[in-house]
Amino acid sequence: MFDRDEPLWDRTLRRIRQIWPLGEQAARKNLVAPSLPDSDLPGLRRRIDACLEGRGGDVSARTRAALLGETYLTLDPGGRRRFLELLAREYDVDDEAVEKAATIRLQCTDEEERRRSNRDLRRLLEPRRTILLRQFNGLQEGVKFLVDLRAELLPMVGDDSALRSLDQDLLALLSSWFDVGFLDLQRITWETPAIILENLIKYEAVHAITSWRDLKHRLRQDRRCFAYFHPRMPREPLIFVEVALVNGIADNIHDLLDESGPTLSPTAADCAIFYSISNCQAGLAGVPFGNFLIKNVVKDLSDKLPNLKTFSTLSPIPGFLPYLRAQGETLQLTEKEERSLKEQGGDKPGEFFLRSLYNLEEHFQSEPQSPLKPILTRLCCDYLLNVKRGRQAHDRVCHFHLSNGARIERVNWGADRSAKGWQQSAGMMVNYLYQLSHIEKNHESYTGSGEVACSTAVARLARG
Amino acid sequence: MFDRDEPLWDRTLRRIRQIWPLGEQAARKNLVAPSLPDSDLPGLRRRIDACLEGRGGDVSARTRAALLGETYLTLDPGGRRRFLELLAREYDVDDEAVEKAATIRLQCTDEEERRRSNRDLRRLLEPRRTILLRQFNGLQEGVKFLVDLRAELLPMVGDDSALRSLDQDLLALLSSWFDVGFLDLQRITWETPAIILENLIKYEAVHAITSWRDLKHRLRQDRRCFAYFHPRMPREPLIFVEVALVNGIADNIHDLLDESGPTLSPTAADCAIFYSISNCQAGLAGVPFGNFLIKNVVKDLSDKLPNLKTFSTLSPIPGFLPYLRAQGETLQLTEKEERSLKEQGGDKPGEFFLRSLYNLEEHFQSEPQSPLKPILTRLCCDYLLNVKRGRQAHDRVCHFHLSNGARIERVNWGADRSAKGWQQSAGMMVNYLYQLSHIEKNHESYTGSGEVACSTAVARLARG
Amino acid sequence: MFDRDEPLWDRTLRRIRQIWPLGEQAARKNLVAPSLPDSDLPGLRRRIDACLEGRGGDVSARTRAALLGETYLTLDPGGRRRFLELLAREYDVDDEAVEKAATIRLQCTDEEERRRSNRDLRRLLEPRRTILLRQFNGLQEGVKFLVDLRAELLPMVGDDSALRSLDQDLLALLSSWFDVGFLDLQRITWETPAIILENLIKYEAVHAITSWRDLKHRLRQDRRCFAYFHPRMPREPLIFVEVALVNGIADNIHDLLDESGPTLSPTAADCAIFYSISNCQAGLAGVPFGNFLIKNVVKDLSDKLPNLKTFSTLSPIPGFLPYLRAQGETLQLTEKEERSLKEQGGDKPGEFFLRSLYNLEEHFQSEPQSPLKPILTRLCCDYLLNVKRGRQAHDRVCHFHLSNGARIERVNWGADRSAKGWQQSAGMMVNYLYQLSHIEKNHESYTGSGEVACSTAVARLARG
Amino acid sequence: MFDRDEPLWDRTLRRIRQIWPLGEQAARKNLVAPSLPDSDLPGLRRRIDACLEGRGGDVSARTRAALLGETYLTLDPGGRRRFLELLAREYDVDDEAVEKAATIRLQCTDEEERRRSNRDLRRLLEPRRTILLRQFNGLQEGVKFLVDLRAELLPMVGDDSALRSLDQDLLALLSSWFDVGFLDLQRITWETPAIILENLIKYEAVHAITSWRDLKHRLRQDRRCFAYFHPRMPREPLIFVEVALVNGIADNIHDLLDESGPTLSPTAADCAIFYSISNCQAGLAGVPFGNFLIKNVVKDLSDKLPNLKTFSTLSPIPGFLPYLRAQGETLQLTEKEERSLKEQGGDKPGEFFLRSLYNLEEHFQSEPQSPLKPILTRLCCDYLLNVKRGRQAHDRVCHFHLSNGARIERVNWGADRSAKGWQQSAGMMVNYLYQLSHIEKNHESYTGSGEVACSTAVARLARG
Repeated sequence: MFDRDEPLWDRTLRRIRQIWPLGEQAARKNLVAPSLPDSDLPGLRRRIDACLEGRGGDVSARTRAALLGETYLTLDPGGRRRFLELLAREYDVDDEAVEKAATIRLQCTDEEERRRSNRDLRRLLEPRRTILLRQFNGLQEGVKFLVDLRAELLPMVGDDSALRSLDQDLLALLSSWFDVGFLDLQRITWETPAIILENLIKYEAVHAITSWRDLKHRLRQDRRCFAYFHPRMPREPLIFVEVALVNGIADNIHDLLDESGPTLSPTAADCAIFYSISNCQAGLAGVPFGNFLIKNVVKDLSDKLPNLKTFSTLSPIPGFLPYLRAQGETLQLTEKEERSLKEQGGDKPGEFFLRSLYNLEEHFQSEPQSPLKPILTRLCCDYLLNVKRGRQAHDRVCHFHLSNGARIERVNWGADRSAKGWQQSAGMMVNYLYQLSHIEKNHESYTGSGEVACSTAVARLARG
Repeated sequence: MFDRDEPLWDRTLRRIRQIWPLGEQAARKNLVAPSLPDSDLPGLRRRIDACLEGRGGDVSARTRAALLGETYLTLDPGGRRRFLELLAREYDVDDEAVEKAATIRLQCTDEEERRRSNRDLRRLLEPRRTILLRQFNGLQEGVKFLVDLRAELLPMVGDDSALRSLDQDLLALLSSWFDVGFLDLQRITWETPAIILENLIKYEAVHAITSWRDLKHRLRQDRRCFAYFHPRMPREPLIFVEVALVNGIADNIHDLLDESGPTLSPTAADCAIFYSISNCQAGLAGVPFGNFLIKNVVKDLSDKLPNLKTFSTLSPIPGFLPYLRAQGETLQLTEKEERSLKEQGGDKPGEFFLRSLYNLEEHFQSEPQSPLKPILTRLCCDYLLNVKRGRQAHDRVCHFHLSNGARIERVNWGADRSAKGWQQSAGMMVNYLYQLSHIEKNHESYTGSGEVACSTAVARLARG
Repeated sequence: MFDRDEPLWDRTLRRIRQIWPLGEQAARKNLVAPSLPDSDLPGLRRRIDACLEGRGGDVSARTRAALLGETYLTLDPGGRRRFLELLAREYDVDDEAVEKAATIRLQCTDEEERRRSNRDLRRLLEPRRTILLRQFNGLQEGVKFLVDLRAELLPMVGDDSALRSLDQDLLALLSSWFDVGFLDLQRITWETPAIILENLIKYEAVHAITSWRDLKHRLRQDRRCFAYFHPRMPREPLIFVEVALVNGIADNIHDLLDESGPTLSPTAADCAIFYSISNCQAGLAGVPFGNFLIKNVVKDLSDKLPNLKTFSTLSPIPGFLPYLRAQGETLQLTEKEERSLKEQGGDKPGEFFLRSLYNLEEHFQSEPQSPLKPILTRLCCDYLLNVKRGRQAHDRVCHFHLSNGARIERVNWGADRSAKGWQQSAGMMVNYLYQLSHIEKNHESYTGSGEVACSTAVARLARG
Repeated sequence: MFDRDEPLWDRTLRRIRQIWPLGEQAARKNLVAPSLPDSDLPGLRRRIDACLEGRGGDVSARTRAALLGETYLTLDPGGRRRFLELLAREYDVDDEAVEKAATIRLQCTDEEERRRSNRDLRRLLEPRRTILLRQFNGLQEGVKFLVDLRAELLPMVGDDSALRSLDQDLLALLSSWFDVGFLDLQRITWETPAIILENLIKYEAVHAITSWRDLKHRLRQDRRCFAYFHPRMPREPLIFVEVALVNGIADNIHDLLDESGPTLSPTAADCAIFYSISNCQAGLAGVPFGNFLIKNVVKDLSDKLPNLKTFSTLSPIPGFLPYLRAQGETLQLTEKEERSLKEQGGDKPGEFFLRSLYNLEEHFQSEPQSPLKPILTRLCCDYLLNVKRGRQAHDRVCHFHLSNGARIERVNWGADRSAKGWQQSAGMMVNYLYQLSHIEKNHESYTGSGEVACSTAVARLARG
């Protein structure tokens, strides 16, 4: 999380002192041991209580909250866990009061009473700690502090219902603050401040950015990059998407990432390929932006570059190979497919096929027109269209785009020949097509009846 | 509220269409009659339901919400009330579900169950309409829309518990969005955009700004003006304060507002007088900023101008004269005071004094050293220190500053000789002193035991 | 010029001290008496010499120049004149050196020698004072200082060849610094800083802006205002133009300025009327911007609002009525015109007509369809097309637009019914049409052979 | 120079078309062959003439100039030379006219005549091509175009007096446009746009920046970097300086560049070390900024960080080793020095010393307390103080700082142990001290009498 040597936290502290001059002395008095031993807990409780009661007025309470935040940052991992558990267990709702109010509520007879009683009950059900959580917002970096706090909390939650409740408080607060209406959609270019670009390199989760040169390539004139920012975290992208402007729907990632490839004039391209979307803040898990990001970028691009006729992704299928392998011997090949494998696989084409899933790269390289290509393509189409978890597509990337209203347009073998590409997607990538006029209908069908929109070619391939 | 001819709403509509192209056609289909007759309600319910269910995906739902917002703006006052009542009554919490959950809650035995049940109950107690209210935030002007919506709702509430609940939903939402941590404190100068300055003229609530020339005077080099803004309402101040940099604590408002008065170098002043604070948005009633505004401005000024040693207000006492008059014959003068009135008041100095409260201006002008001066001064000190509503000071301005931690420093007669000044404050103004080192203690004493901080002079005067 | 109490100069002084800390003491030592008596001249010469020799290094020389600038500002009008005359007479070129170099130049035989000699001679012909003039640019407000210095110098020049030379140095310097390539074309709206808007009110030279309300009207959504700014004078417009977006070419100014008139959607207008162009800086007389301003605004508007098909001015004819009156009895009416005046003018229609030029307003009001209308229209067309000063149109506004490549489209009587309108233009206004496709040809014809482009209607009317 | 594939030039062209729509067709018609053969010259002359005569009006002339600029960029190196020679020879001053005017000038008798004649002559001595050069400024990138044009011209000049004249025209124009008063001094941080940081990496001329990581180190919180920018070249630094905030005057460059070194709080440093100054634009050779840059940075730093007491450089001595070697056998060692070398150099200490100049690094590494250290230190002090070219210090870096008013504070052996450091400066670096209170005097003494300011230690060492 925060590195105490970083200027970030210096800024926060400076800002704390701007808000109110409790002074460094006060700050120093409040120090606790990094492991937060039991002997430090009474003092900590007193300080939390002072915040919750707004002692000294709102401004002072926010300053105290800031100092508590600083205290948290001085703790070691064990101490931080104890701090969070303190919040989770001791500053939860007052169960007795809730029960009393619930009893009253159940006795209400007229409407007005019910309404008043509902409000009372609702207020009592908001844990006391939420006051403190909101107070952190007094700091310039307070929003980032809370986002990072939640990122630290998430792996601790497990089955602990108290920590889960704390997490839900944080999620509710962050969902309200990170409402998409408050976010700024910004284009990222080579003129963007280096500190933001450095963050892109750090957060890119799909196709790693290997150098500043690689990054510059991804920002050249026939590429686009957009990110959402929150006004109080102006250097921290929340999510970003990388787009290539090309002619025809791209069928592999390597051409797009090739730094030596020719540059196209943006006004000569007919197609925008969304080839990477990365969430940046672990602490914002569960706050949805991706849907808005893609659609707003589609809108922006089609306004500015009317030559663009097609908007498509080039996406991995991270669930595909794990799924195939899990199928094992139950995997069914068609007769024709078995025949095609005879030359290499002899009598046991099924076993041969399963083995080959462990060295797909070799197969691809030795014979690009491998008999594996049509088999994997068929299986992939089938996987995307028909394999489900409940009513959702089994592959999480696929589910994301289908629930956004996209359709499955094409699958491409050998499209991602990186180690990760082979190991997760069997070298496959999909194009999900975003057609403004069909998005709403596709979304409704998918979320309603689970129906998957796809091109006729993919439908045919899936049938084998 | 919104004038449909204003570019503001044009911008909103343009923005709606940017978000998602449901198109103008769709918008037109949705029109209802201005009075919102019963026959239009079913269609309206369907549209609200479509938003709440997120039909067509989040982006589409926000577009639908925007169109609903537009529909609201086409309604006449009666129609708007019906719209709000629909939200209040039909989109409230589901009482049956709440009761069921409350019953379950009361049967919980172990902690984990209790926590889960608390969360369920809490979720059910949030009225469904809050989803829609949040969706308005998709618009550029959506935040302002909600603020103005609440401004229209407030006068309707009265005793209607359903509308009160709707108001509380709005207040909760706006309190979260307008958390002071998200606001920008900006200095207003003669270089500020005219559209913002025009809003200052419109919103000034204490000493009316009579012309652009008057405004320019209030922004000259020995004056300061600061306002809070929300990032999504960049041209709309939320609250602003006007400050005069002078030598010695100012004892009347007229010298400060006099356009022909000499200009002081800001580095030669020893005193900052806060002479006007105005809340600008009726729809944000109950969201507290004033406390933060004054203290942050004190902090900013003392950083930039270390020559400033004293921070004081020059404030009206709007409750004073109404209070005196209400006292009527029960008002007690001291023997000495009665004697001083003998010359003018004859045998009945008390009656004379009460009569004189109706033409104070005349008394002031005819004899500045009026016997009324010491009497009113004593009564005023007494009023401020000793007259309460419950544990709060009776005068609301006084209560505001005392709860911020200020102390009563001095009262000044003839300090506001405007019509409003005579009628509300009997021509009196108070200096409330903000001393960084005492604010916290003063605040605690006042909010704790109701003890009022004041100068020894004021304490002595109050005793008579 | 500068008001020493203005923050402007405070800023300058603060900036001076930023550049180099000669300190206030140094500044004070340098003070001279406001009238710049002879006894102060030797000291002043020493200080100028120190700048010219760059004593103490470039940075110090600039500081000294700044202090000289400050000295200038302390002088009274007489003192300033003496200061300028000192610069003009004592810091001119060294005539002896020039003559020597000219003699050498005339003896040069080979090309290389000639070139070197040319360069030497050119250098010697640049007066020494230009070094000092450039040094003023070290100040933030130094550019404005020089512009205002020239504004003060211009009325002094008269026949004084030394002052004329100084003026030409200033003009050369300012022309280089105010090259249109360095200027920013900015749109002015109601969101522009008030300090700039206040300057528009001050500088508007054609149709006075009577109030902030009037100004706001001129910036509403179907109006446009653009100005050129220099990066070092960001609050001072250099020239600005006001445009109305309307349907059909406007035939009078009053409809455009009427604050209560209906507002048009900018995308519904077919015509942009340039109804006011004002130069703001007297000290930049002779530096041409108007040509660039109009054409760049035409370009900008036609890019952003493709619905605009016609770009026309609505311009006064300030030379018309003075010209008519100066004609006196030599003015020739046609037979038909004389007849039309018979009813009112009796036997002497010419005399009647001349008299009526002194109360045109009355004539216009009493009978809008006055016999004067066709006569004045004919005379006006004739004046614009045929009356010249040398090869230029006699009316200076007409000459400006014709040399920009516009054509005379229409003349309108009763188009400007203000006092100034009657007194200068006889109530007439002209529409000059800017057609992108004809501008270059029109410009060439007019600057080449003096040929005036006009509509056939105007040509016909001019013939009577 | 410009790469035609670069967006830079795309921007320029787009801008050209914004200025005036001569259209792409026109542009295409104007193409000449890359080598600019004789057959293309008449057409080129016609186009230049059209610009100089302002044909079609100012706006059109600027568009034509832009297209000429584009034509220049299509030429190969030979073609560009021919283009520049055409400008140099055919668009120079009209010698005949000059001679006529010079003759008239020599016959002038009265003052007024002389002045008018001076002005005429001066005007005639400005070559006609300067009109064209100014017109390039109509382009957004026109200023950069001219800077780069001069960078291409400079190596061609040699003894060619015509090209030299052209260069002087360009220098005069650029000196006026790049007057320091028009430049913006900007701090460079890790938040600066990447495109500017990339330019720093490219332009660093003293201690190469080896990676983005290295650059980030140089921008961390105890480092400072400042650059001058021109408003029309906002991404192109003109000159920049790198500063380290440290305790005590730094005695070697390696500690400063060490990425793993500890970071100091800026408010804890007492000393600012200017360790690198780089000019960025070859085409601005002869336009002085360095003097202003250092002094303004000293001013800025001492304002913001009053804890900084000492401002010093850590500078190379590029002329030192070449000078020593050139001395060869005439180099005189003191008796004591010869003795110290006896152990290693035997009988011929002088020869040994000269040989050791070729492998200083080895000597330094094998015995840090080498006898070479005092000898080189003495010789270096002597070199800096006493070796001159005319009245200037022989070493150009030394001359730069002395003429700025700095003094020689200390010389440090082994301070720059890079290959360049050994080869140019014999591993030595100097601290030049900038003391605000002495700068002016030092400058005067040095530029006046050539007297060199130095610490007493250096003076003593130089005496040996």
